[in-house]
Amino acid sequence: MTRLCRTFQTAPAAVPRDDTAKYLRSGLTAEGFATPDWLVPDLEDGTAPDMKDAGLDNVVDLLPEHAPGFGGEVWPRVEWSYDDAGLRDRGREQIDRLADGVGEHLDGVVVPKVGRLADLERAATAVADAEREAGLPDGSLGLAIIVETARARSDLREIGRFGADSRLTALVFGPVDYTAELGGRERDGERPEWTGLLEALSNEASANDLLAVGGPFDRLFRERAGVTFYNGDAYADRVEQEAHLGLDGSWSLHPSQTEQANRIHMPGVDALRRDVRRIEAFQDAKRSGTGAAMVDGQMVDEATFKNFANTVETARAIHDQAPDQAAATYGDELLDRALALDTSW
Amino acid sequence: MTRLCRTFQTAPAAVPRDDTAKYLRSGLTAEGFATPDWLVPDLEDGTAPDMKDAGLDNVVDLLPEHAPGFGGEVWPRVEWSYDDAGLRDRGREQIDRLADGVGEHLDGVVVPKVGRLADLERAATAVADAEREAGLPDGSLGLAIIVETARARSDLREIGRFGADSRLTALVFGPVDYTAELGGRERDGERPEWTGLLEALSNEASANDLLAVGGPFDRLFRERAGVTFYNGDAYADRVEQEAHLGLDGSWSLHPSQTEQANRIHMPGVDALRRDVRRIEAFQDAKRSGTGAAMVDGQMVDEATFKNFANTVETARAIHDQAPDQAAATYGDELLDRALALDTSW
Amino acid sequence: MTRLCRTFQTAPAAVPRDDTAKYLRSGLTAEGFATPDWLVPDLEDGTAPDMKDAGLDNVVDLLPEHAPGFGGEVWPRVEWSYDDAGLRDRGREQIDRLADGVGEHLDGVVVPKVGRLADLERAATAVADAEREAGLPDGSLGLAIIVETARARSDLREIGRFGADSRLTALVFGPVDYTAELGGRERDGERPEWTGLLEALSNEASANDLLAVGGPFDRLFRERAGVTFYNGDAYADRVEQEAHLGLDGSWSLHPSQTEQANRIHMPGVDALRRDVRRIEAFQDAKRSGTGAAMVDGQMVDEATFKNFANTVETARAIHDQAPDQAAATYGDELLDRALALDTSW
Repeated sequence: MTRLCRTFQTAPAAVPRDDTAKYLRSGLTAEGFATPDWLVPDLEDGTAPDMKDAGLDNVVDLLPEHAPGFGGEVWPRVEWSYDDAGLRDRGREQIDRLADGVGEHLDGVVVPKVGRLADLERAATAVADAEREAGLPDGSLGLAIIVETARARSDLREIGRFGADSRLTALVFGPVDYTAELGGRERDGERPEWTGLLEALSNEASANDLLAVGGPFDRLFRERAGVTFYNGDAYADRVEQEAHLGLDGSWSLHPSQTEQANRIHMPGVDALRRDVRRIEAFQDAKRSGTGAAMVDGQMVDEATFKNFANTVETARAIHDQAPDQAAATYGDELLDRALALDTSW
Repeated sequence: MTRLCRTFQTAPAAVPRDDTAKYLRSGLTAEGFATPDWLVPDLEDGTAPDMKDAGLDNVVDLLPEHAPGFGGEVWPRVEWSYDDAGLRDRGREQIDRLADGVGEHLDGVVVPKVGRLADLERAATAVADAEREAGLPDGSLGLAIIVETARARSDLREIGRFGADSRLTALVFGPVDYTAELGGRERDGERPEWTGLLEALSNEASANDLLAVGGPFDRLFRERAGVTFYNGDAYADRVEQEAHLGLDGSWSLHPSQTEQANRIHMPGVDALRRDVRRIEAFQDAKRSGTGAAMVDGQMVDEATFKNFANTVETARAIHDQAPDQAAATYGDELLDRALALDTSW
Repeated sequence: MTRLCRTFQTAPAAVPRDDTAKYLRSGLTAEGFATPDWLVPDLEDGTAPDMKDAGLDNVVDLLPEHAPGFGGEVWPRVEWSYDDAGLRDRGREQIDRLADGVGEHLDGVVVPKVGRLADLERAATAVADAEREAGLPDGSLGLAIIVETARARSDLREIGRFGADSRLTALVFGPVDYTAELGGRERDGERPEWTGLLEALSNEASANDLLAVGGPFDRLFRERAGVTFYNGDAYADRVEQEAHLGLDGSWSLHPSQTEQANRIHMPGVDALRRDVRRIEAFQDAKRSGTGAAMVDGQMVDEATFKNFANTVETARAIHDQAPDQAAATYGDELLDRALALDTSW
């Protein structure tokens, strides 16, 4: 079954306001296309040092009420660093508290700033320990990591292979810390694109059945001629580029980003209609025994067929997890055809 | 001796026409610049499922007549997949039949969709078994692979090292399957360029004395203002970019592509004349004992000299394999000078 | 302590002139921004075969007089090649002679054309042997390598890890030999950018606390409308791109290139003033116990703080090694604030 992470939306677990859980609550009660596939209550860089305890309390308080009705998965980001034992201790305490307090409402935890493979293994052990202590089923808590250190990039292949057979579920790019660690410098206001890293992230995820997710885009708004507005073109361009390279999803910092990225990482209605029709035609030809199937004037080989099937299977996964989004995008008639299809070659 | 694969031309082994071997025969009887360095009778995606038996028959039938007079090497592509045991069984049967039936006319076989190193080793074993069963000399059948899975990309360094001391001869990029496996999506009608992968392919080939070849370019024709014509600029641009990155050759789907890629992957006549002259001047200086040789106002160091020598050695290899192409490009006088040269530092 | 190599300036150790040491002497007596962080007397490709002995004599003769007053480090480049035992023997003799004759004036040696990890280990052993024979303190001679072979690129990760705990100090890109070895070809007069390699060089250097340096830019001058002038825009663009990707320094072939690259690889005065102010504000907030610090309207997290601290620490290192450059760039008042700062989080 195709796993989805079209959108990885971080929300500060606590902010210095009367309602410290404002953004967390807002994420957990999002509806329609503003619902992220993964909501990431952020106990790391998104929450101020003196609010981290409040943030952890907020997550433990809100999940029992809101998680059951929330449409996506819940993956808190804890503190961690390959080169800071104190941060790792805090991370372990956070994981323990989360597993013990709201483990049944969590899909996993997100661990930042992992270093080489051995550090990832430490993080995986911390999750396994917390899971067992909390009496949760073995493997019920997933692990996602932010790839944002030179060491993790250096070990990415081994990290991916570890993921092929472990609770590791997703590789998420962290460009701000990564650029700082390499000493990279903005040019014309832009960080390097790190295309080589993104290619490798997409490849290692595919080679090991993991999800790959791009980094945050923080120029949420821009100003022109005295008016400030949502920077929707620049974000959509970024997300389209990430889809181009085969990333499964994009990072979101705002419900509008979530709406856009959810849509961009869905197969479009025309693509789904086309590929449903192609598979139907192919299966008809197979049944009628005419052998090589020509569809749309092209011979369909197994590689081409797999592309058609991917489109359909992603649409089905979206239907499973976010039926309202699937229905709004595809309509009931096309969706029924997609669900009825035999996608085997 | 420099091995050539300027052009890797696939031809369907059988097509649904009266003459099912039309394209295969056409490839095997090509002349002049339309002769590919490697002709690849395609039993995989280029031949329809119900025509694969006919395709294998065609290869076995035609090679004894046409291979002896054909100017290039012959490398059939068989079926295979790292994740489909049935396809691997079919691939083994095809390799056995080819080795047994026309082994002495083959230079090797091309195996697609290999996965990690262990899967490549399976493919190499299949070729070794077939070679032995057919009573062919040890190592007479080469192996080339299509690099088109995330697993092969992940293991590319180990795959290259395996190639340093085995029958593995060439690494060929397969962008369609690769992009599908990573879930990459076209943008403005284009697949990702996968520059990081191409750099790595070129590097690992050079590090292990293998050949590196780019992927197919399937927009053979284009239409403008009602007229459809051969898309020769776009293909030549692609091939020039592949030569830029140090790939040894390009994939061809059509005799016109072969003509272009053969020429682009040859040293030009001006480059050969210049480098022949430089080596002659350098060797004169060495003989006259003046020490450091200045040629064209530049001091010639060993690195620069190696560049000159590469040009000359590639031209010599083309002269060996395709003397008509070498003569037509360079003329007899320049060619004689190139053949007479001492290319040692 | 941050180690600097903003500029890696090669100078031929001997040239065919009356004063064979002209460029070497000029490098060793450079002042102000024309002083390279590393001066590299070149016994390899920059010195003609018949002048190599004179070059070695020049280095041994000049260092005792000039090295003590020289503002940068001294790293001669010797001969070497992974595939030529004769060159490696010559390299060992050169290293021995340098260590024995002027070891106390050297910071290390630069070894070109290393191959796989095992060849780097041979080079490191040669330096260790020479160091011991010369009675120099253990580890006093560093090792830098030119990454310019397919084998070194293939083993870059292992080479980096070797550097984490050895005398290996810097990874320097060598694009001319690298492009030749891969068989890459100029296009529109340009070599490939090898972005994937540069990303990896920057990453492996950061993962293992090594320095990463870009390759030489040899179009020193250009001509327009009959006038020839220093090609300063093209070089500065190149150096800015290298800083963008996180390289620590750039190769220089000329004092003007050194002046530019020294400045580009320094934090600018505005950046230093801004980051000093931010750290001061952050430390004030920490002392006043207000918790999360807002600076310039943004919350300062640890990742952001580390960026500020990097700026300050690089400026301090420049102040240590080239106090005149630091004073000229930043002024005394800002420099005093930078030196007084607490850069811990």
